[in-house]
Amino acid sequence: MATYQMGPDTYAVPMTLFRDNRIRVAKAVKDAQPSLDDSAYIVLQGGVDVPFNDTDVDHIFRQESFFQYLFGVKEPGCYGAVQVGTGKSVLFVPRLPEEYGVWMGHLHSLEEYKIMYEVDEVKYVEDIVGFFTKANPSVLLLNCGTNSDSGLSCHGAKFDGIEGFKTNNNILYPVLCECRVIKSPGEIEVLRYVAKVSSDAHKKVMKMVKPGVTEYQAESEFLHHSYSVGGCRHTSYTCICGTGINSSVIHYGHASAPNSREIINGDMCLFDMGANYAGYAADITCSFPANGKFTDKQKLIYNAVLAGRDAVLETAKEGESWVDMHKLANKVMLTKLKEGGIVKGDVDEMIAKGLNGIFQPHGLGHLIGLDVHDVGSYLEGHPKKPVEAGLNNLRFARILKAGMYVSVEPGCYFIDILMDKALADPELSQFLNIPVFESFRNFGGVRIEDDVLITENGCENFAIVPRTVQEIEDYMRV
Amino acid sequence: MATYQMGPDTYAVPMTLFRDNRIRVAKAVKDAQPSLDDSAYIVLQGGVDVPFNDTDVDHIFRQESFFQYLFGVKEPGCYGAVQVGTGKSVLFVPRLPEEYGVWMGHLHSLEEYKIMYEVDEVKYVEDIVGFFTKANPSVLLLNCGTNSDSGLSCHGAKFDGIEGFKTNNNILYPVLCECRVIKSPGEIEVLRYVAKVSSDAHKKVMKMVKPGVTEYQAESEFLHHSYSVGGCRHTSYTCICGTGINSSVIHYGHASAPNSREIINGDMCLFDMGANYAGYAADITCSFPANGKFTDKQKLIYNAVLAGRDAVLETAKEGESWVDMHKLANKVMLTKLKEGGIVKGDVDEMIAKGLNGIFQPHGLGHLIGLDVHDVGSYLEGHPKKPVEAGLNNLRFARILKAGMYVSVEPGCYFIDILMDKALADPELSQFLNIPVFESFRNFGGVRIEDDVLITENGCENFAIVPRTVQEIEDYMRV
Repeated sequence: MATYQMGPDTYAVPMTLFRDNRIRVAKAVKDAQPSLDDSAYIVLQGGVDVPFNDTDVDHIFRQESFFQYLFGVKEPGCYGAVQVGTGKSVLFVPRLPEEYGVWMGHLHSLEEYKIMYEVDEVKYVEDIVGFFTKANPSVLLLNCGTNSDSGLSCHGAKFDGIEGFKTNNNILYPVLCECRVIKSPGEIEVLRYVAKVSSDAHKKVMKMVKPGVTEYQAESEFLHHSYSVGGCRHTSYTCICGTGINSSVIHYGHASAPNSREIINGDMCLFDMGANYAGYAADITCSFPANGKFTDKQKLIYNAVLAGRDAVLETAKEGESWVDMHKLANKVMLTKLKEGGIVKGDVDEMIAKGLNGIFQPHGLGHLIGLDVHDVGSYLEGHPKKPVEAGLNNLRFARILKAGMYVSVEPGCYFIDILMDKALADPELSQFLNIPVFESFRNFGGVRIEDDVLITENGCENFAIVPRTVQEIEDYMRV
Repeated sequence: MATYQMGPDTYAVPMTLFRDNRIRVAKAVKDAQPSLDDSAYIVLQGGVDVPFNDTDVDHIFRQESFFQYLFGVKEPGCYGAVQVGTGKSVLFVPRLPEEYGVWMGHLHSLEEYKIMYEVDEVKYVEDIVGFFTKANPSVLLLNCGTNSDSGLSCHGAKFDGIEGFKTNNNILYPVLCECRVIKSPGEIEVLRYVAKVSSDAHKKVMKMVKPGVTEYQAESEFLHHSYSVGGCRHTSYTCICGTGINSSVIHYGHASAPNSREIINGDMCLFDMGANYAGYAADITCSFPANGKFTDKQKLIYNAVLAGRDAVLETAKEGESWVDMHKLANKVMLTKLKEGGIVKGDVDEMIAKGLNGIFQPHGLGHLIGLDVHDVGSYLEGHPKKPVEAGLNNLRFARILKAGMYVSVEPGCYFIDILMDKALADPELSQFLNIPVFESFRNFGGVRIEDDVLITENGCENFAIVPRTVQEIEDYMRV
C-alpha cells in the first residue's frame, strides 16, 4: 500500500485517502449534474514552483490544495484528471531532461509515479493534449472560483491546446469545495495527527517561555518540534506569537511585526500556531502568562474566554447554526466580563448593539482542512455572511454537519482603537464600567483556539493542550 | 542611530549601511553616465506579499534584494527613490486603512518610518505621481535586467502614471549589480554575522547527527539554531541534507526528495545550509561521516576535496582569475584521487578532456551577498561563461577584486549517470582505474563550502566549522 510518510515515526498517509476523494468528487459531480456524460473529465493543474523574485531560489514548494486533495502528489508542475463516469485517474508529470538527474537525483519513471501515488495512469504533461484527444471527453470540468477568505480566484487548468476541447468553468468548483467541507475518515486521521503534533509543540513552547525569552524563540521552538518530531516541513500559516500588548494584535507576526519582542514578567502570551502535514492543517491558539502564574486580571479575562469556549464545545453538533455558536460564546464571555465588573447592563442588549465586536472583533472560527481557512464557507445555497456589527467578520455561517472540522477560537482583546471607538459611542459606552475597562489598556488579549470535529451528537476536540487556569499553572510549574 | 535588530542578542544592522549603499549607487550611476542630469531619480519597487495560490495565507515575506540593498525596509508594498545628484532618498509606503490597526497593531506614521529607516522623506505610495510631478526629474532610472543564474528578469518599478515620465531601462541594472558585487564594510559585518550563526548551526547539527536520525531532523536543528539564537527567520535557500547516496545529489532537499531519509551507519552526510539575516546570505556546506569516524574511503575523498579547497584559500586574492581558482581546485583534487588510485595518467590531460566535470559537475563557487547566488557574475565587460566541459557550469568567471564575497565549494561526487558517461567515453575512461572507480558507486559525495571575502593580499574565510578529518572526528566524539 503506497503512503506519504515523512519519516519512520511520522504518520503514514495512505494514498487511498486521495483515491477516495477522487471517487467522492466524481460521484458528487454526477449527482450535481445528472445530465453529464460519463466521458467528461475533471482536470486540475497542480502547484508550480514560486521563485523569490527574479532569483534562482524558490519558496519551499507546498502542493496546491485542490490538487493535493485529489492526488496527494509532492511534485510541482503536474496536472491530474479524473473521469467522471468511472473515477479513473490520470496523473501528468513533467518530463525532466535526463541531465537533471545530476542535480536532482533519481528521476522517477512513469511506472514509479503510478505506484507511488496509486493512480490508474501516468503520462507526461507534454502528452496531455494527445491523451484527451484520444479520450474524446464530452467536456473538461475546470476548477474556477473565488476564495471567500482571500477574495482571490483559481482560474482553472491551463495548457497549450486546451482550446481544442469543450470546457466548463462552473460545475466543478462548488462540488469540490463541498466535498472538502465534509472530512472523510482518512482525512480525519491526518487532521488528528497534525493537531497532536501542533498541540505537543505548543506544550514545548509553554515549558520554555519565561521572561527574557523572545517571541521568535517561542516560534522557533514550535517549528522545531513540528518538523523534527512531527515531520511537518510547513506551517499552515505564519506563526502569531504576540506577548504583552502584542497579544491584542490579531494578525501579529507579519513582516512589520515579526515576533521580535522580548517577553517580560507579567506579560500574557498569545501563541497561534499550526503545523501542516501532507497538506492538512492545524490551527491552535494557547494563551498563558509568561511567568506561569495568572494575575487576577489575567484570570478574569482568561476564564471569560474559556467559559465561552466550553459553552460551544458542549453545544456544537450537527444541526446547530454556527452563527448561534458565535453568539453563545460571546454571550457567555460578556456575562463573565459583567461578573468581573468590566461591563454592565443586559448582555443580550450589548450583543444587539455590537459590543461583542469590541472585545472580539473576529468570528468564532472557521472551517479547517487543507487550508487553514478552508473552502466552502459561503457556497450558494448556504447562509450568507451576516452584516450586523459583532457578526460581520464571521468567516463561516453555516448549519453544522457531521464531518465538518472547525476552529473554535473565542477571544477577548483590549485594542486601543476599538476601546476608543466604544468609549466614543454612547450606544456602546453605556455598557462599560469605564474605570475598570480603562484599567485593561495595554493588557493585550486572550484567545483560546481548538480544532473541533463536528459529529452527529456533539463534537470532538483534537487540540490537546492545558486549558484551565489550573492545568496551565500546573504544567508551567518547573 | 536606527538599526534593524531581530532580538537583544542578535546583530544590530545600522541603517547607515543602506544609506551608504544609496550614496554609492547614486555616485556610480553618475560615473557611468556623466551626461545624466542631477534631477534624475533611481526608482525601485519593493517586494510584495506572495499568496499561497488563491488562499489567504502568504509566504512569509522577505524583502526583494535590490530594494533591501538600498532601503533595508521590512515591509511589503513599498517604493523607493534616490535622486542621482544629491543622493536624497524618498521612501513610499502603502497607506493602510485605519481599521487594519485592529488586525495588524500599531500602524506607523510617515514620521515613524522616516526615523526607523533613516531616509530623507517618507510619502504614501498613492502620492508617488504627485511627488515626481513636483520633483520634475529629467528621467526615472528603472531596474531592468536578467539574472544570470535564474534566467528570470526584473522588470523595473511599475505604478499608475509612470507613463507620464521619461524612463530609462538600461542604465541602472548593471550599475546596481556592480555595486552589489563589492561589499562595503557595513555589509561585511552582516555577512560575517550570518556566516557565524550558520557555522554554529552546522556545529549543532554535527553534534546531534548519528545513525537513526533523519535528514529533516538535521535540517530542523539548523533552522532552530539559526532562528532561535541568530534571529534568522529565513534561510538563503532550501536546506540540502543529503546522506548516503543522497549526498551525491547536488540539489537534494527539493519537493520530490525533501530530506526525508533516515541516516544509517556508514553514511557520509553532506549538509549545505545557510541562514539569512537582514537579507544577507550565508552558504556553507559541511560533509562528515554520520557516525563521527571516517572510513579510509571517506577519508580519501574528503581529503582530496579539502586539499582543493586549501589550495584555493591559499591562492585567492585580488587579481586572480576565478576560472584559474576552479582549475586549481580540480587539479589538486584529481591529483589526490590519482594518489588514491581512483584515476591514473596526466592530471592536466584529464582536465583538458573534462574529467573534472565527472567528479565535480558544478563550478568552484559563486558570488554571495543579498542573494545566495548573487548578482554581477556575467555583466558586460567581464569574461563570459566558459563553454568547455568541466568549466561550463561556472556561475562566475571574473577576475577577483577586494571586497568580493564568494563561496569556495569544491566537491567530489559519485553520480551514477556521470559515472556511466565517463565509463562509456574512451576519452574519459582512459584515466579511470575502473575497479576502484566502480567501488565508489553508492558512496555519495563530499562538498566543502566556505564563504570567503577577497582582499588585496589574500582572503578571509567567514565559515568557522571543523574542517580537517581530525577536527571533525574530535568535534563529533561524545
